[in-house]
Amino acid sequence: MQRLGPWSREAWAALALQLLRPPRAPCAGATLLFRRVQGGLGQPPAREFAEARLKIQSEIDKEKSNFVIKTPKGTRDLSPQQMAIREKILNAIISCFKRHGAKGLDTPAFELKEVLTEKYGEDSRLIYDLKDQGGELLALRYDLTVPFARYLAMNKIKKMKRYHIGKVWRRESPSITQGRYREFCQCDFDIAGHFDPMIPDAECLKIIHEILNALQLGDFLIKVNDRRILDGMLAACGVPDNKFRFISALVDKLGKMSWKDVRQEIVGKMALAPEVADSIGVYIQQHGGVSLVEQLLQDPKLSQNKQALEGLRDVKLLFEYLALFGITEKISFDLSLARGLDYYTGVIYEAVLLQTPAQQGEEALGVGSVAAGGRYDGLVGMFDPKGRKVPCVGLSIGVERIFSIVEHRMEATEKIQVTETQVLVAAAQKNFLEERMKLIAELWDAGIKAEMLYKKNPNFLTQLHYCEETGIPLVAIIGEQELKDGVIKLRSVASREEVDVKRENIVTEIRKRISES
Amino acid sequence: MQRLGPWSREAWAALALQLLRPPRAPCAGATLLFRRVQGGLGQPPAREFAEARLKIQSEIDKEKSNFVIKTPKGTRDLSPQQMAIREKILNAIISCFKRHGAKGLDTPAFELKEVLTEKYGEDSRLIYDLKDQGGELLALRYDLTVPFARYLAMNKIKKMKRYHIGKVWRRESPSITQGRYREFCQCDFDIAGHFDPMIPDAECLKIIHEILNALQLGDFLIKVNDRRILDGMLAACGVPDNKFRFISALVDKLGKMSWKDVRQEIVGKMALAPEVADSIGVYIQQHGGVSLVEQLLQDPKLSQNKQALEGLRDVKLLFEYLALFGITEKISFDLSLARGLDYYTGVIYEAVLLQTPAQQGEEALGVGSVAAGGRYDGLVGMFDPKGRKVPCVGLSIGVERIFSIVEHRMEATEKIQVTETQVLVAAAQKNFLEERMKLIAELWDAGIKAEMLYKKNPNFLTQLHYCEETGIPLVAIIGEQELKDGVIKLRSVASREEVDVKRENIVTEIRKRISES
Repeated sequence: MQRLGPWSREAWAALALQLLRPPRAPCAGATLLFRRVQGGLGQPPAREFAEARLKIQSEIDKEKSNFVIKTPKGTRDLSPQQMAIREKILNAIISCFKRHGAKGLDTPAFELKEVLTEKYGEDSRLIYDLKDQGGELLALRYDLTVPFARYLAMNKIKKMKRYHIGKVWRRESPSITQGRYREFCQCDFDIAGHFDPMIPDAECLKIIHEILNALQLGDFLIKVNDRRILDGMLAACGVPDNKFRFISALVDKLGKMSWKDVRQEIVGKMALAPEVADSIGVYIQQHGGVSLVEQLLQDPKLSQNKQALEGLRDVKLLFEYLALFGITEKISFDLSLARGLDYYTGVIYEAVLLQTPAQQGEEALGVGSVAAGGRYDGLVGMFDPKGRKVPCVGLSIGVERIFSIVEHRMEATEKIQVTETQVLVAAAQKNFLEERMKLIAELWDAGIKAEMLYKKNPNFLTQLHYCEETGIPLVAIIGEQELKDGVIKLRSVASREEVDVKRENIVTEIRKRISES
Repeated sequence: MQRLGPWSREAWAALALQLLRPPRAPCAGATLLFRRVQGGLGQPPAREFAEARLKIQSEIDKEKSNFVIKTPKGTRDLSPQQMAIREKILNAIISCFKRHGAKGLDTPAFELKEVLTEKYGEDSRLIYDLKDQGGELLALRYDLTVPFARYLAMNKIKKMKRYHIGKVWRRESPSITQGRYREFCQCDFDIAGHFDPMIPDAECLKIIHEILNALQLGDFLIKVNDRRILDGMLAACGVPDNKFRFISALVDKLGKMSWKDVRQEIVGKMALAPEVADSIGVYIQQHGGVSLVEQLLQDPKLSQNKQALEGLRDVKLLFEYLALFGITEKISFDLSLARGLDYYTGVIYEAVLLQTPAQQGEEALGVGSVAAGGRYDGLVGMFDPKGRKVPCVGLSIGVERIFSIVEHRMEATEKIQVTETQVLVAAAQKNFLEERMKLIAELWDAGIKAEMLYKKNPNFLTQLHYCEETGIPLVAIIGEQELKDGVIKLRSVASREEVDVKRENIVTEIRKRISES
């Protein structure tokens, strides 16, 4: 486009044309521009137009021939092996959510852009917007929490315990994407409603505990803190209000960074006095059980701060409940836990694996957060015209990380069965397609999981090989002699034993074999 | 913007500004335009710029205050009641897919735009594009078939039987949206690979038959045709090649429109001779069983057309296989069946409900397609650099329509149980929170589905009422006397019978009650 001078009519026309051509499908801006060009110009000069069109076309053709087939950046397909693992993990999680009486809920993949704005602070830039096609401004959901809050406010629901399994999308920048995907699955459980303090909060921690136990991911720790303690502590240390979030974000890095480096950023980047940083440091390097909570309740600085005091009292109550649930052993009150999301207002928590089982390839995955959540009492009110609040507390299981760990473990130790087929219907000789089709229909209608090869005359060994390859345990064999005798030969793939079963008893016999295995 | 004259620098600057302001987040066109404006102009005059900005800001504020909380057009939330129904239906479908040996697969919600272009013909305009944020051009998937073909080509897979349950998105225009959603769930089953003719095709029809039977939706019919028969017939009737797709689309309307009206459009809009329309009419008004196929094999016009002949021979073979599967009774060879999608190359089919059970509200839903599919032998090759083909055949269950039917039926006839909770842990008097928490943790750890109210001292009747409301069958009651006696009172909500169970036997007793119910 360089040869067209700036501000010439042709330049604008060509630009408009380029913006309108597929595969750059029209966006509102281009359409507007094009109308303006036409309105101001009438029909642009034909020769210039044709030239521009040719050039653009050749560019498009070039792009097309360079096209490499792939999934979009940061996304992936899940193979049958991965799906089989995922199904097992999700089943364990869903069954725990149901055990705690949660109802299912589903929301659209995208929301009105306004629903998502001003909910995620700095992270809003990671939201995927849809193209405006003359209708509503839409964006893919960033988590399942904001759609839940929107659902509650929209339907004026004051009380609900729900779970939601679904994909969310975040345009993470490649540099920070290490094992992170731009499309990933979330498993959320939330309790909304006005209740007595810390009872639902304790149940959320119990659920995380149950799920991590059930999935056998090795030893874990659930870190607990409270936004009010964190904010109160920062205030008590002399941090001005408007720097709370930035300092929180730095504090959250403790563990990934040394205190020395965190301190340096507080003093350097955030321009706080070294004494302020040091007094923050005294607090955030502490973690422990209920005794630490009690100790801090006596702390001269914190006990003077109303927010911190409220938070500490609630965390103390929480620990009492967790003791009743018998899970305090895995809980660590940790003053450095901050959690990124803007909407938290009370208790926050995050579960980390202490070590992944020493398996090949797992080292690269490292340890890290596998579940997290907290209390967000203000979010529903943001959607209510009168600002009426519905307090909420919830958790999200970080299944993608769990998938990776289990996947590596299973790849190393066992063959993953991706289909559940119980019987292959096979032919011993040629010309038994009809008999195979009649038999397999009978098995399907009886609810038996059965396959056959889609060949008129498959080789007998090919059929046996297929069973071994895919893990099918039984073969129902039809042959000349069997047809004459009115029987089916039933073969166990593992033992290679074969028995003749009367045609009319084959369903019963297969069912018996399946229930025994 | 009217006051700014055409082509003035200020007009462009203001336009660019407007396009760049949130919530109209930047699109590629606007960014390009803005750069050009800056490049050609330097900084635009400050006063004009400020005025334009103010005007735009006031418009944005107005929009914001008018904001009504809702889901995007054509989408909806699924309530717990709807989710419970959906879960039952999906389970029936998935269990059928697994019975036929299909593996699971998942693909991203969006694809590179290039993957979707030139696959859907006219319908491409219904694809949701994502905003270009300086990266790839992306679009939400339109179906699960094209991503499957992309997956096969990308991974050079020559053979696969997979199922995929997932959402797809189509920007249907409101006028044609009658009960249709812009976001909806698809349940697909496909068989890819070179096999002997019609064997996998017959299995697809068997699967549709099994699923519609299992879901008890009432009487149904599966219409079958073949793209080659349709095209061959049109050619034999004298329709030029370039009008095949348009005429097919008209033919497909037979049933919704009378033949008289279809004929009028063929003659009027498509400018074909009345004799051509009449000879098409003779064919497409015919439907029947295998005897119709045999009759058409003798048809002087069709038997001269290579394509039609191939199609008819395959449909004849298909009928033989369907007879072995015992399902020909529900199959109708129907020459008017055309199916919209561009990628079909062979057999096509569509299942319709003949009547929905006469229930209140269902009349409005009417009858219609609940499953469909066909053979698409060319699609995978479109993604292969060397055009290598992988023949495929598959089906898609129209679950949204099925959900609506079942939902209406269930709302009319029965109470839908949305949670699976088996026991409520209740207190008979005040101050038993601790005991309740200890007991419920024990039940959860034993895998029993249990709930308690999140109050320190809930009213006893409120607790019983909660059970009746949500369908919880058992109440485990803790009270002063029970605590003294070392028992729990176990109450059946339905019979109101209460028995004392020793504290140490409570898990066993509850398990026994559950297994008996």
